[in-house]
Amino acid sequence: MAPESSANTPSTTENRGNIAAASGRRASITVELAERSYPIEIGTGITGELADVLRQEVGDLSHALVIADESIQTHWADPIIECLSSIDNVRVNNTNVPSGETTKSVEHLSRLWDWLLSSGADRRSVLFAIGGGVVGDLAGFAAASFTRGIRFVQIPTTLLAMVDSSVGGKTGINLSGGKNMVGAFWQPELVWIDTACLQTMGERDYLSGLAEVVKYGVIEDAEFFDWLCKNAASLLARDHAALQHAVTRSCQSKARVVRDDERETSGRRAILNYGHTFAHAIEATAGYGAILHGEAVSIGMQMAASLAIDMGLCDESLLTRQTELLTACGLPVQFADADADKMLPVMMRDKKVAHGKLRFILPTDIGNVQLVGDVDPAQVRSAIQAHR
Amino acid sequence: MAPESSANTPSTTENRGNIAAASGRRASITVELAERSYPIEIGTGITGELADVLRQEVGDLSHALVIADESIQTHWADPIIECLSSIDNVRVNNTNVPSGETTKSVEHLSRLWDWLLSSGADRRSVLFAIGGGVVGDLAGFAAASFTRGIRFVQIPTTLLAMVDSSVGGKTGINLSGGKNMVGAFWQPELVWIDTACLQTMGERDYLSGLAEVVKYGVIEDAEFFDWLCKNAASLLARDHAALQHAVTRSCQSKARVVRDDERETSGRRAILNYGHTFAHAIEATAGYGAILHGEAVSIGMQMAASLAIDMGLCDESLLTRQTELLTACGLPVQFADADADKMLPVMMRDKKVAHGKLRFILPTDIGNVQLVGDVDPAQVRSAIQAHR
Repeated sequence: MAPESSANTPSTTENRGNIAAASGRRASITVELAERSYPIEIGTGITGELADVLRQEVGDLSHALVIADESIQTHWADPIIECLSSIDNVRVNNTNVPSGETTKSVEHLSRLWDWLLSSGADRRSVLFAIGGGVVGDLAGFAAASFTRGIRFVQIPTTLLAMVDSSVGGKTGINLSGGKNMVGAFWQPELVWIDTACLQTMGERDYLSGLAEVVKYGVIEDAEFFDWLCKNAASLLARDHAALQHAVTRSCQSKARVVRDDERETSGRRAILNYGHTFAHAIEATAGYGAILHGEAVSIGMQMAASLAIDMGLCDESLLTRQTELLTACGLPVQFADADADKMLPVMMRDKKVAHGKLRFILPTDIGNVQLVGDVDPAQVRSAIQAHR
Repeated sequence: MAPESSANTPSTTENRGNIAAASGRRASITVELAERSYPIEIGTGITGELADVLRQEVGDLSHALVIADESIQTHWADPIIECLSSIDNVRVNNTNVPSGETTKSVEHLSRLWDWLLSSGADRRSVLFAIGGGVVGDLAGFAAASFTRGIRFVQIPTTLLAMVDSSVGGKTGINLSGGKNMVGAFWQPELVWIDTACLQTMGERDYLSGLAEVVKYGVIEDAEFFDWLCKNAASLLARDHAALQHAVTRSCQSKARVVRDDERETSGRRAILNYGHTFAHAIEATAGYGAILHGEAVSIGMQMAASLAIDMGLCDESLLTRQTELLTACGLPVQFADADADKMLPVMMRDKKVAHGKLRFILPTDIGNVQLVGDVDPAQVRSAIQAHR
């Protein structure tokens, strides 16, 4: 879903602890979708456990196709490939795609389709997507459409992908005229999250991912919000236990929302867009890439909170608490270049605009949001200006 | 699904009767797929009834996007567009694609996606596909994937599309390395069949479509097979009542099979491939387009029947009866250029090959077929040679 410019190229200046030592305490969450249900497995340094889990969760596996972000091939994809190759009678093919949002294009999709065909993929093959949201979204759509659907496994290596894009089955690519305009709802067989990957993420990308973590606290998990307030320092230090808890709790939130509204038909899934209508407008007007998706979401949640206060939906203390937490997570809470004159027209074209009327997910208190339709543009303008 | 080279460009030499006079006796079949159920409406000269049916079956309609085969724009798409435009508060956009199998490409799909975006399509828009199987398959996949799925209506104008590709939700495009390799199962909201379109089809294309009609008789409707034997002459004369009956009965067959196995998981849907493994090999080795899909299916069914006899699954009389009916329908029952040395390798690469073993849908008697695995290539070779 999100632009992730630098993914997680291993940092050479930092080594955040012994990954293997943290192994062996895996959390498992089920995304409950009847015959499309699947587990999210979360742990640290768990590659050695993958083969067993695949046997249980994916079953018949004779042909694995691995698509990885080229920037993490050596560090994170190669060990997975080695694991897959060690399973009896499994044939493995591997390809790379470049890092960055421009990879979510028709051209790269077409290349992947051709690669699947030339690799001899058929309906019994299983595709593995290793990387951030870009790889997961692109490879997921390739899996959804090749021979009208093959099984796939999400192996997210960035925080944003772990807590957001890898869970819930939204796959797709961008068109030159719009982001995520084409794709499919296609659920993976398994989401495999090794939080060890987070140790090698660049600082700015890592912090950006925390914005979506904070989002879950605000939209539907007040207890988690409190936990985040107390443990922000541990998350900044990338403490293993804190990361495992934060990712697990975020995935639980996402799994609940997706279970209740898999295909965005009831409106419930829209709560995941808290802060995002502002964020998309910030990203679009700042030029995609100038600001990271999570940074824009952080600022967008601030604008949404201000709008909610202005509309009498919640009191000032919500904004105060949210500001404190986002700041403690090293995230921006204002954007000097925010330009309401440019942002408003973008917001009017948003997919969530119904009949030209602005709609927002707005908080009523920590842990609760609601969809508010027909919002006065003047109030939206004020909310933007409150965070410049 | 099928290559249809010339679609139904109006014939200037023939006028097969007053279409309007035949209006008013519509048959309705439901494809029963729980929340994805939809009606197939079949009649002659029924454009005047479309607006009412759309109100009932499609409901909320404010934006219609019409994709039509360029060869039938004036004759068949324009009246539909006029009808759509006459509905209150409906905005209509229209585009064309060229006739012929090469239109089922990534390039045309990409162009359609961009067109949908630039036309302001959103999740409430409805796409109308007017033409043969090429347009239905391409536009259907565009509908399945644009914003992860918008509603669509199939308006087939060729016999093959009416009785086969427009029903059942198989959509997709070809890759340069293989036909129908990419796509989605995406059911329409409505299939609207005006058999008046059949009057303007070129003779060879029209007869080709009859092969799939005969197929339904052999695979699961012995009573219909008998009816076809008695009414072949009426079908050749394109008699309105005979056409309405043949299309209706064919769609009933297809609807039953799709209901029982929407996504080709139980194996039941495979019976629709009767004759097709041979046919695909004939088409591929003859060069796509040299022989029409239905012609290849006709010959392929003959080869499958010979194989069944050779394997002791049915007696000679089945082949005799099938030969008589196909011949009465003006279809070829042998192919002088059939080359087993070339066809066998193609058949081994077929999607239905499991672990290198040839599998076929073979008749046991008229109205019954079964999936037979691990067939001896020598017997396949004999079956091919029996119809050279």
